[in-house]
Amino acid sequence: MHRTKVRVVEDVLDANNTIARANRDDFDRHDVTVLNLMSAPGAGKTTLLEKALPGLEGVRPGVLEGDVAGSLDADRLADKHIPVTQLNTDQGFGGECHLDANMVRSALPSLPLADIDLLVIENVGNLVCPAEFRVGEDARVMVSSVTEGEDKPLKYPLMFRACELVIVNKIDLLEHLDFDMEKFDYHLDGVHPGVRRMLVSARTGEGIEEVRDWLVRLTTRAGAPA
Amino acid sequence: MHRTKVRVVEDVLDANNTIARANRDDFDRHDVTVLNLMSAPGAGKTTLLEKALPGLEGVRPGVLEGDVAGSLDADRLADKHIPVTQLNTDQGFGGECHLDANMVRSALPSLPLADIDLLVIENVGNLVCPAEFRVGEDARVMVSSVTEGEDKPLKYPLMFRACELVIVNKIDLLEHLDFDMEKFDYHLDGVHPGVRRMLVSARTGEGIEEVRDWLVRLTTRAGAPA
Repeated sequence: MHRTKVRVVEDVLDANNTIARANRDDFDRHDVTVLNLMSAPGAGKTTLLEKALPGLEGVRPGVLEGDVAGSLDADRLADKHIPVTQLNTDQGFGGECHLDANMVRSALPSLPLADIDLLVIENVGNLVCPAEFRVGEDARVMVSSVTEGEDKPLKYPLMFRACELVIVNKIDLLEHLDFDMEKFDYHLDGVHPGVRRMLVSARTGEGIEEVRDWLVRLTTRAGAPA
Repeated sequence: MHRTKVRVVEDVLDANNTIARANRDDFDRHDVTVLNLMSAPGAGKTTLLEKALPGLEGVRPGVLEGDVAGSLDADRLADKHIPVTQLNTDQGFGGECHLDANMVRSALPSLPLADIDLLVIENVGNLVCPAEFRVGEDARVMVSSVTEGEDKPLKYPLMFRACELVIVNKIDLLEHLDFDMEKFDYHLDGVHPGVRRMLVSARTGEGIEEVRDWLVRLTTRAGAPA
């Protein structure tokens, strides 16, 4: 029973990886760098993109917006004149809790790949399943809000392990919280030793310049910067 | 293809409901009221339980703690002398993103059902899949932190619809946020008109007495209070 389940899961992930590679080929053909942006609900992914994407030095960004329902985030980004495509996951179930390679593939015809250099795929807010499904990205970035507590790396280890950069957001609230940054760093190093991290307040703009530099380097070198 | 997928999902949910009813029968046999507690990661479920459960008037509580990995929350509750059983979901996949009826069933032999009146099942932090799987509960409560923003009911409608009570947590941070409570209420009423809501700070204790009263009434009447 357990073995059957594991087999089914492996088949699903194998099929996903095959489609992810096809996406990858299409992105390469258009010379587009792709970032898979993940976090818990409400960690501030969209606000981060609103702040970081306009005026990227020499890089034309675009966004694929994944949500269970609605187009709130896409509307916010469109207001900033960022090309954005909405992808809703509420077709089956009560909504898929993550994007997979096939969902991203279905959105490819709607993406202006010829007119952008960097595609940010904003995943569904969830700290579990998005980490399990590659979608054809060059790099994975996760946003962890200090309001969520310093124990999250221990409770959702795969998510914190499956990324090249951890953006610690909402640091403007630190003085009002019991959040212990040393403890967070310790837990993070426990599951992903030495992973690159940036302290940011998407709301005030603190730390955004560092994120922008990272995005520009990612795009121009097409690989996660050291 | 789409129809096959829907069929498979329906079969999965049917099987889950059958097991949920068996759980329900076992809980009834022991006269235990069961609450399914759900939220996004880091919304404050465990802190809420730490504050609300000790000293409940005439009600002996117990907790079934669902996590992908680790036993941090269970340890915190055990420190408060609350009977707690840990259930980890990291067996298949990189971790299941929700509890289902069968996982709860597997934990039944470890639960002190003869010695408690109220069992709180703390689900995995996730705003999508936990709402889809009944586990044999009397009532479902979700915790929404004001730090997550006022748009969450629109983005995760099933979760906000599938509960009898919405606890709006971390209100001690309201003065430091751009959160608009009227907008949140409006969005919440849009997906679940008139659902009972309570404003709480689990950290400062504000509003906890109201939560306790609700829990006591739920347990003594075995149904969600009006």
